[in-house]
Amino acid sequence: MTNQIDSEAILKALANPVRREILQWLKQPEHYFPAQHVSVSHGVCAGQIDAKTGLSQSTVSNHLAVLQKSGLICCQKVGQWSFYQRNEAVIQQFLQSLQRDL
Amino acid sequence: MTNQIDSEAILKALANPVRREILQWLKQPEHYFPAQHVSVSHGVCAGQIDAKTGLSQSTVSNHLAVLQKSGLICCQKVGQWSFYQRNEAVIQQFLQSLQRDL
Repeated sequence: MTNQIDSEAILKALANPVRREILQWLKQPEHYFPAQHVSVSHGVCAGQIDAKTGLSQSTVSNHLAVLQKSGLICCQKVGQWSFYQRNEAVIQQFLQSLQRDL
Repeated sequence: MTNQIDSEAILKALANPVRREILQWLKQPEHYFPAQHVSVSHGVCAGQIDAKTGLSQSTVSNHLAVLQKSGLICCQKVGQWSFYQRNEAVIQQFLQSLQRDL
């Protein structure tokens, strides 16, 4: 089943260098987040992303929310922690739609 | 020769529905601008684009400037008129870079 992607929200999400960088990092989580104690297979903890950006927790939280609302990443909550990973299906659908429509 | 594209500027330019629509129109100028007296082969006159959007001349002028600065469209001046067309080379480079880097 193909969900409808929100190209508008995705383009806005991508129009920011920090958000593009976070997406890059999440593409190779083992490489960019070697300090995470638990496996990165279910995502990277928000705290690890905060630390890597060097920005405030609230700023990064906003960036993650924009990425998540656009559908580019998804979040899994485990207890008090939030783990983020890319939504490759949405990313591929977006690339295909841009290739077709631009 | 491959010129460096400005993905940041392009993504910002695309993150607006009016600008995406203008790009769509310029893809098929004969279809969308049948009223233009001179051939659309060298571009579509700014006035025609203003009229089609239904927005003010200054608003459309800003949108065209953002698109032009990003490299997605180029402008040719003939006397007092400005004619706009898509820069397909830049659009293709952008799509390839996004496919590679996202």
